[in-house]
Amino acid sequence: MIKPRTPPGVMELLPRDQIAFQRMLDTIRRHFERFGFLPVETPVMELSEVLLTKSGGETERQVYFVQSTGALAKSGSEGGEGGMPELALRFDLTVPLARYVAEHEHDLAFPFRRYQMQRVYRGERAQRGRFREFYQCDIDVVGKDSLSVRHDAEFPAVIFAVFSELDIGKFTIQLNNRKLMRGFFEAQGVGDAELQARVLREVDKLDKRGADYVRETLVGEGFGLSAKAVERILAFVEVRSTSHADALAQLDALGTPNDAVRAGVEELREVLELVRALGVPESHYALNFSIARGLDYYTGTVYETTLDDYPQIGSVCSGGRYDDLASHYTKSKLPGVGISIGLTRLFWQLRDAGLVDTAASSVQVLVTQMDAAHLPQCLALAAELRQGGLNTEVVMEASKLGKQFKYADRAGIRFVAVLGEDEIAQGTVTVKDLRREDQFTVPRDELAKALRVELAQAEVEARA
Amino acid sequence: MIKPRTPPGVMELLPRDQIAFQRMLDTIRRHFERFGFLPVETPVMELSEVLLTKSGGETERQVYFVQSTGALAKSGSEGGEGGMPELALRFDLTVPLARYVAEHEHDLAFPFRRYQMQRVYRGERAQRGRFREFYQCDIDVVGKDSLSVRHDAEFPAVIFAVFSELDIGKFTIQLNNRKLMRGFFEAQGVGDAELQARVLREVDKLDKRGADYVRETLVGEGFGLSAKAVERILAFVEVRSTSHADALAQLDALGTPNDAVRAGVEELREVLELVRALGVPESHYALNFSIARGLDYYTGTVYETTLDDYPQIGSVCSGGRYDDLASHYTKSKLPGVGISIGLTRLFWQLRDAGLVDTAASSVQVLVTQMDAAHLPQCLALAAELRQGGLNTEVVMEASKLGKQFKYADRAGIRFVAVLGEDEIAQGTVTVKDLRREDQFTVPRDELAKALRVELAQAEVEARA
Repeated sequence: MIKPRTPPGVMELLPRDQIAFQRMLDTIRRHFERFGFLPVETPVMELSEVLLTKSGGETERQVYFVQSTGALAKSGSEGGEGGMPELALRFDLTVPLARYVAEHEHDLAFPFRRYQMQRVYRGERAQRGRFREFYQCDIDVVGKDSLSVRHDAEFPAVIFAVFSELDIGKFTIQLNNRKLMRGFFEAQGVGDAELQARVLREVDKLDKRGADYVRETLVGEGFGLSAKAVERILAFVEVRSTSHADALAQLDALGTPNDAVRAGVEELREVLELVRALGVPESHYALNFSIARGLDYYTGTVYETTLDDYPQIGSVCSGGRYDDLASHYTKSKLPGVGISIGLTRLFWQLRDAGLVDTAASSVQVLVTQMDAAHLPQCLALAAELRQGGLNTEVVMEASKLGKQFKYADRAGIRFVAVLGEDEIAQGTVTVKDLRREDQFTVPRDELAKALRVELAQAEVEARA
Repeated sequence: MIKPRTPPGVMELLPRDQIAFQRMLDTIRRHFERFGFLPVETPVMELSEVLLTKSGGETERQVYFVQSTGALAKSGSEGGEGGMPELALRFDLTVPLARYVAEHEHDLAFPFRRYQMQRVYRGERAQRGRFREFYQCDIDVVGKDSLSVRHDAEFPAVIFAVFSELDIGKFTIQLNNRKLMRGFFEAQGVGDAELQARVLREVDKLDKRGADYVRETLVGEGFGLSAKAVERILAFVEVRSTSHADALAQLDALGTPNDAVRAGVEELREVLELVRALGVPESHYALNFSIARGLDYYTGTVYETTLDDYPQIGSVCSGGRYDDLASHYTKSKLPGVGISIGLTRLFWQLRDAGLVDTAASSVQVLVTQMDAAHLPQCLALAAELRQGGLNTEVVMEASKLGKQFKYADRAGIRFVAVLGEDEIAQGTVTVKDLRREDQFTVPRDELAKALRVELAQAEVEARA
């Protein structure tokens, strides 16, 4: 007897949690499509040579390699020479996107707008809330040669649509711009990219270590910044706009100390105006000059999204603008902009915070069985309900009616249909509504419609 | 520069083919849910020890093992001792189901009805139409201790619903019963299970080698059956019913030579009656006594589904009844019944046969841009259309209108919305319908509704 269990670091759900998870996936997908993104799926296995072009030590150590039994036996007999296996599991959806766009370049229309919602794999150290297999939900727009900054404005609108419907409380989409940051640091005498990165890492400790610690570090050995520069930097990374007008004013206040600041300010201003034109309420977006994200990757707009009441969850949707997606695979220049939602971790955190519940069953009606002789009638009723668009389960083995009701209740099925001697004679069905603890009898040919109305009402109430 | 490419044996689609594929997945899922099956997803990686309990050589040779960089380095330094890696990719959805049900037994309600639609992995030899990564779409009902044969009747109803909507031509759901087969062979003096299997393998060559060859083999050395028994066997496996009444008559004609035949006939009779009660037209199901399927696995009803006009595609949906799902993981007896659709291969074959087309874009409207100054207006219009439930893309970088139309046409986007000086002044939008090669102007606040009506009509026409 083998103990049935999953490997550590994966999230496996019971059906009613899976239903809640699936609803989130469906919501995200619906909005991705509504904004005109096209679906792409790529194989979970990529050629190692293709997948691991640029990644250095950190990523590489977390990669899962794949070998068929045959390949394994072969490498074993050669004495474990340690050569890299031919196949590996993708660790994100960005490298596969780069490979996909470069491979299919001549069959795609640019700007290419794609969404991809699949699992990715990382050999992380197992710990609470860290996953080795998790869903990413990505959208990107990829241009050929160039891509207007206007595209950057669509992403806050998508984020707003998705997270409004996910209904997990108030959230704020935070914007910054890497050109602006770079220019600002240059103006403070921190021109070197590596030094900027080190300064930002110290600044990131503000919350944990406090301003005094950071101030001391930055004026101290190893940085040697002037006290004045440090004050300006600390003031800069504290900037959060409080409204659309305030955001524009904060940008104006920066002046134009150099070209990089000027370019960053212009980009942010255009993005802000178009985000407003797209109908995102100003309560839901703000400038946040502390956001840096992947310093060696993003080159323009950067995004983070935080839940106002759950800052400890961190960013639930992030991304930004990059200069060239696929330089390892093609000579074409492919600038792009995109965002990603790490849904497995998010779902886990939301459940932990009590923000998502186990869902009601996806089954909407249970057709009971009082007497085996009536089963054909019950099945015909079920067929009618399914035809009418209702997810319907039939009790196939007769038992006491009370037991069947208890089953429905435990399973989270709201409606129970009873077809007894009387109902059959009268062409009716008796329905018990387990949520309202109510029951009613309707003509059989009106049942599907009646239940659809009830369910639609419940949907409306749930959203109100 | 690395050549961007996928490993052999995977199916990667361009977006409009992915849309067609996704529609098939959605259709299957909708019907699985309509019949009251609950969603389950399991990790792609399972512990090798758990995954490979029972599989012998054949399956094991096709397994993909997974190792993180760290694990790989370790096994390498130990000199390739050839021990089995800890993790492996699932090669079907049945073993993970068994593990899932055994692991979560106390949290599940029985009979447990689950659907699962995920990719599985097999290290097959690469050849045309064979995939190393492919989708399986499975449903199963698993009972605890016992499970009435009535459940077996639901599967033809699900198959009928799914394949009717997939709209890939006339199909027939073929039924047989392993008890019936076993009893019949016993009555012909072929009692030994292994001999039965060998006889069936020979019988399977009827199409290719002809009746004479099979007859000769079975009366010859190694089998030694009587000529009379062989005639009866050949007549038996030729049985195909032509209607519901004919199916019942064929069952009657078998008589009751032994208990196994009697049990099989009774089960098939009950299944046939309930399949009819569920509204499956008799034109779409038939007995076929040649269907055996996984001889060491199935124990009662077995199903295959074939496309009437494309017999060469083989079975597009198969399955059956099994006695005990998870004997390696639990002492509980878990009988079940289920079916599986191998969607990647099916999609590939249907495309090959010209039965599925590249889909229209999932984008329904393209909002054009005539003048950069109007972009905020265009974005506001797009927001209204999205609010109205339409998948909408906006041209972000102005170009000649003709170029924008051409883009929509190539991308498979049916409607193009034009918002020019005049339209803005009059509060209207001009819409070009690229399918009908028609154009019309409507008040802006009626546009979403007008397009929804057009699209709903197109949907109805497409189904007619």
